[in-house]
Amino acid sequence: MKLALAQTNPVVGDFAGNVARIREMSRRAAAAGAQLVVFPELSICGYMPRDLLEEPSFLDACERALDEIAADRDAPARLVGCPLRAEGPGKPLVNAAVLVRGGERIVTAKRLLPTYDVFDERRYFRPGGEADLVRFGGTLLGVTICEDMWTGEHGQGLYEGDPVADLVEAGAHLVVNLSASPYARGKPAARRRIVEEHARRHKVPFAFVNMAGGNDQLIFDGNSFAVDGGGRLVAHGAAWGEDLVVTDMSRAARPPADGDDVGKALVLGIRDYFLKTGFADALVGLSGGVDSALTACLAVDALGKEHVTGVSMPGPFSAPISEEDARALATSLGIRFHVVPITAQYERMREALRGVWGEQPFGVAEENLQARLRGVVLMALANRQRALVLATSNKSEFAMGYATLYGDMVGALAPLTDLYKTEVYELAKRYPIPERTVTRAPTAELRPNQTDQDSLPPYEVLDGILRLHLEERLRPAEIVEQGYDAATVHRVLKAVSLAEYKRQQSSPVLKVTGKAFGLGGRRFPIVERFFGGAG
Amino acid sequence: MKLALAQTNPVVGDFAGNVARIREMSRRAAAAGAQLVVFPELSICGYMPRDLLEEPSFLDACERALDEIAADRDAPARLVGCPLRAEGPGKPLVNAAVLVRGGERIVTAKRLLPTYDVFDERRYFRPGGEADLVRFGGTLLGVTICEDMWTGEHGQGLYEGDPVADLVEAGAHLVVNLSASPYARGKPAARRRIVEEHARRHKVPFAFVNMAGGNDQLIFDGNSFAVDGGGRLVAHGAAWGEDLVVTDMSRAARPPADGDDVGKALVLGIRDYFLKTGFADALVGLSGGVDSALTACLAVDALGKEHVTGVSMPGPFSAPISEEDARALATSLGIRFHVVPITAQYERMREALRGVWGEQPFGVAEENLQARLRGVVLMALANRQRALVLATSNKSEFAMGYATLYGDMVGALAPLTDLYKTEVYELAKRYPIPERTVTRAPTAELRPNQTDQDSLPPYEVLDGILRLHLEERLRPAEIVEQGYDAATVHRVLKAVSLAEYKRQQSSPVLKVTGKAFGLGGRRFPIVERFFGGAG
Repeated sequence: MKLALAQTNPVVGDFAGNVARIREMSRRAAAAGAQLVVFPELSICGYMPRDLLEEPSFLDACERALDEIAADRDAPARLVGCPLRAEGPGKPLVNAAVLVRGGERIVTAKRLLPTYDVFDERRYFRPGGEADLVRFGGTLLGVTICEDMWTGEHGQGLYEGDPVADLVEAGAHLVVNLSASPYARGKPAARRRIVEEHARRHKVPFAFVNMAGGNDQLIFDGNSFAVDGGGRLVAHGAAWGEDLVVTDMSRAARPPADGDDVGKALVLGIRDYFLKTGFADALVGLSGGVDSALTACLAVDALGKEHVTGVSMPGPFSAPISEEDARALATSLGIRFHVVPITAQYERMREALRGVWGEQPFGVAEENLQARLRGVVLMALANRQRALVLATSNKSEFAMGYATLYGDMVGALAPLTDLYKTEVYELAKRYPIPERTVTRAPTAELRPNQTDQDSLPPYEVLDGILRLHLEERLRPAEIVEQGYDAATVHRVLKAVSLAEYKRQQSSPVLKVTGKAFGLGGRRFPIVERFFGGAG
Repeated sequence: MKLALAQTNPVVGDFAGNVARIREMSRRAAAAGAQLVVFPELSICGYMPRDLLEEPSFLDACERALDEIAADRDAPARLVGCPLRAEGPGKPLVNAAVLVRGGERIVTAKRLLPTYDVFDERRYFRPGGEADLVRFGGTLLGVTICEDMWTGEHGQGLYEGDPVADLVEAGAHLVVNLSASPYARGKPAARRRIVEEHARRHKVPFAFVNMAGGNDQLIFDGNSFAVDGGGRLVAHGAAWGEDLVVTDMSRAARPPADGDDVGKALVLGIRDYFLKTGFADALVGLSGGVDSALTACLAVDALGKEHVTGVSMPGPFSAPISEEDARALATSLGIRFHVVPITAQYERMREALRGVWGEQPFGVAEENLQARLRGVVLMALANRQRALVLATSNKSEFAMGYATLYGDMVGALAPLTDLYKTEVYELAKRYPIPERTVTRAPTAELRPNQTDQDSLPPYEVLDGILRLHLEERLRPAEIVEQGYDAATVHRVLKAVSLAEYKRQQSSPVLKVTGKAFGLGGRRFPIVERFFGGAG
């Protein structure tokens, strides 16, 4: 049986576009002789539609789109992902895979509904029951959807059932999985591991079809693949874009070399955010530091150098080398470069404020003032040029609140905010960033001779503690047992808690780890005295 | 049997404080002869703890707190709400009511787990099974938790079971419900209606105990009550604060007159946000318009006039009456008042930007520039005075994106953002707001002779369309059928969609309706082309 893995890049709610894409891939798959074309989870409406799934008009549109696809009676059988209404008590929808073949429609509903991290599927869907097999000549096909395959040691003990095992027991000769599985470091290999395990344990071939493209904070890496009944890789789609792979499930295949590349992931996340919101141009405030330099490099890869503008905004405490290094970066990238000093505005603003508070010693208000005036400059340029500002915070400073709300936190998208500072340095190595930007001690330059390490533990220590706290969820005492100083651990965890109010007003964060900040990933109250201590 | 309804106001994660509060209320209830003291849902840790429920150290602390409460062997029986670990497959927790009596602990797990709107309980908890009754002498007690009572026509068809009916069938003589039921207009009456129905249908007395106090965007109104087996009200707690009501379930009672008052709700929401984050002072930018005037009035009720500062920030297009009216309001409220003009900073900033873009016609960049400079002023004052800025957007303009991100949207909390403009006018009537502020045509004063109605449909029309879209979730065509102009409906829905990016960076919104903006209530993608149209 010839199978087509059709990894599309849908736009949420763009039914005309998504259907056109499904039709076009179906035509190409048919031309290559495929008998079945498998599309990703929710490929008709895009993932994740969030509360659009509660809008009757949106569900009507899903049904109409499905009808349009079904109208292609001569196409090969197609498996598309679509929300479908369900009757009786429980949530009013299922997350369905619909097999459309001639005039026939066979519905499989997702059984395991992820409701953790960025996933809210229990908010919208009821779980499906055991599914029927679909006959293709002599082949019995078992259909699963994303989480349905994440059982056993991969299931975190969250589920009782094992949809893959049930289908095989019922006689499936081939299992397919429609996914919208967002990228995180290590995820492509984890998917292959689990699918190989299923295939080997059950002695069935298995095809996994994933979505491609960025949607808000999620980046779908594609990386669809198939294994034979021995768990050997027999087909693999591209990473970081749409692809159509037609396979007879017999020839050996290899995964792409760049299949788990965090830089590629961020570039795709930026590109699709701009494309899908209808913007072409990005603005980056270039401080002379490594975060903004790397942000600009990624933006150039995503949008092209002619669509990126760097802005240096020297203030009263900026070293001349900051502007120099920003300019050197802009030159090496070939991007447009502006210098808009903020010192005069800063002085004028302080003068106006002196009317209220008189003479006051320099303090945090003055530091934030500089950062916020830079934010005002960037947003004015963005408004005028119809561009989007990219925020430049990394995960370490974002966790600690070492950033100014409405200041350096302004932006439409935060590409680096799921990378620790140590990871920023690592990724920066592959770009033509001026030497001094990388070797210089990090500084916000908001007061004389300031460096990050005046306020923060050394980044190696900080990142270690943050990783154990945020990703591993160790208890504070367990973090200390790993060799960190107790007072430092306490200070870091408290700072993370107290900065929650800033993070809840941040730009969307591109997710590249198992636990990203940003909407939906890590959901914390602002008011809490557990990690936060007495208010 | 004498019952105490103990409506506490916990702080999330403040175990020492929450336990002390439970102990103190238990002592008072014992002194009044109560045999059972009922506390709210999750009263030990506060509601909603969100992802703190995934932190092992937080769960350890919950268990320790429960042990401390259980150590009071001489206290009457107490029913407290607490997350508890569970074994085997499924989510690792239950949302439990623990009856602590002498050395005994009897656990009831919540069966119906709300996973919609602001609720994410399936993210953390597994549902409980049918619960055992608890014997109190000759009385068999049935325990339910919040959503467990929202069955029948109130259950939205989401659930199969009916925990109250099951308990009565098993022989319960009395049903209690531990709730953390957030306020929304009409909710107090809805709760009474459903509890009366349960009582009358099953001929059992029923006691409902709710949380009090504000937590982030949720406001718990208290309003605990009990009805006898005929559905007659026999006890009622205060609205908008802690209360302890000891009742023998026989004397007639009345609900408080202010039990469903949106103004009181907002005042409590503001007060507790400040109290629980450890801030005393609020800053409000006073534009001379009704939104900022009402915000200041609510802040005065919440914090006291000595803790509220009004700031007028006249700019190049401000009418002199704007500052006059702001001053008049400040005088009538007796609050501190500053004037910080922004015109000179605006001119200085334009000059700096001219270096980039040369002479350009006045446009939206210049409008936003003014709003953002006001944001910078407010934040500088807040930083210096250790105050929090209150944002002043109403639901109508917030929906439409008729607000400047990082400009008038700055703030730690957005008290009015769940009130439509027409509702703002309504609530404003009870405060000493200058006549002209209310009668004047609303204007952002960001360009000459601007009024809101240049950009928005009349507020009566806009609010009508928004309500049908946001709260009733009518299809666009259905909204038109209600008598609205099709082009206006289309324009409004598209604007709502395109402004999602602003809302995702807003301050937390106090929720007072069934569907509020802000984190968790209405979850929409930024990138979507369904309501948004082609990007």
